[in-house]
Amino acid sequence: MTTAPSTENATPGNLPDRIRASALDDIRLYGILGLRVTRVAKRANCSVTQIYRHFDDRDGLLADVLSGLFREITTRNIESSIAALSAMDSITIPDLVSILPMPSNITKREDTLLRSQILAVATVNHTLRDGLADIAKSVWPRWVEACDIIEARLAPGESFDRRVVFVVLLNSNLFYNSLLDEHGINDDEYRAFMIDAFRMKPSAN
Amino acid sequence: MTTAPSTENATPGNLPDRIRASALDDIRLYGILGLRVTRVAKRANCSVTQIYRHFDDRDGLLADVLSGLFREITTRNIESSIAALSAMDSITIPDLVSILPMPSNITKREDTLLRSQILAVATVNHTLRDGLADIAKSVWPRWVEACDIIEARLAPGESFDRRVVFVVLLNSNLFYNSLLDEHGINDDEYRAFMIDAFRMKPSAN
Repeated sequence: MTTAPSTENATPGNLPDRIRASALDDIRLYGILGLRVTRVAKRANCSVTQIYRHFDDRDGLLADVLSGLFREITTRNIESSIAALSAMDSITIPDLVSILPMPSNITKREDTLLRSQILAVATVNHTLRDGLADIAKSVWPRWVEACDIIEARLAPGESFDRRVVFVVLLNSNLFYNSLLDEHGINDDEYRAFMIDAFRMKPSAN
Repeated sequence: MTTAPSTENATPGNLPDRIRASALDDIRLYGILGLRVTRVAKRANCSVTQIYRHFDDRDGLLADVLSGLFREITTRNIESSIAALSAMDSITIPDLVSILPMPSNITKREDTLLRSQILAVATVNHTLRDGLADIAKSVWPRWVEACDIIEARLAPGESFDRRVVFVVLLNSNLFYNSLLDEHGINDDEYRAFMIDAFRMKPSAN
């Protein structure tokens, strides 16, 4: 279920890495919620006690492995956004909106769904929460940079309200919208909304 | 961890209800991710086989119980919003924004965190996904009604863009924002953004 690095990353002789690779396999097969420590141990050819020695408990193992996945997803998101923006000489707001994920393909975006699962686990797993906070803070300057690129290349007459990136895009995953079927926001409506939103200007309210 | 109805809802003689109540207790104690069917069976004074007879499997049990919780949270949200709006004679956009949850208290809002966990589980549990879709669709007209109330009572000179409700509010939970600490959107910034966003007007783009 994920596009994460597979077992080939594991050094056979390195037990923690073997456990991580086995946990990733378990997540891929059974989902985050389905991960079983006994199965992870068996696949990694070690005992449950050895897993707990390295990762404290099930939460510690999940925190380690899911932080790694979250870092990959987050890095992939920002780097592909910056690459797409860097390829544009003059950026109009419709250009910008054209690189956003659309509501119609949310359920096909495994990264987005996995990201929402990892964030949900972090609401109850404090070690994971701290790991994700470190990643989110370390990647934050890259989002500021992406906004700076947009402003620097903005087509004449356009305006760009970067608050839409930080308030809306980074906190939204549209899965709820996908539940609404014909009542949900469709791609055209989403596109039109985002164009208007990016063109807002902060008022002195 | 939840404010859901407790075991008192269970009729002692009704096995499915006793299982549901036990599962809710397990979720309250160990989180959705921590639910163990063996523990649920023991507390409900039945066998795991009996649970599977009524709910098919662990996913079926989760789908049943989490749909119930989601329905409560969703109903509570919309009904308290409508009650707050109905108490206002003339609605300005700052009034409206004053009833929104703010970023600073996201991690204290158990309903919001639980909602995000339930939505995340639904990305991999298809029975639950279908249950949530039914609930989301059944409550959708109430959100339209809330928007109608706002428009009917809008203070002179104000404008209200209801797309903000459907595109932003219903799909956002701000947990990611809470990870960013001092880089995150603060309450004043969030309030200012929402005021501007609600005052947008759909353009013909």
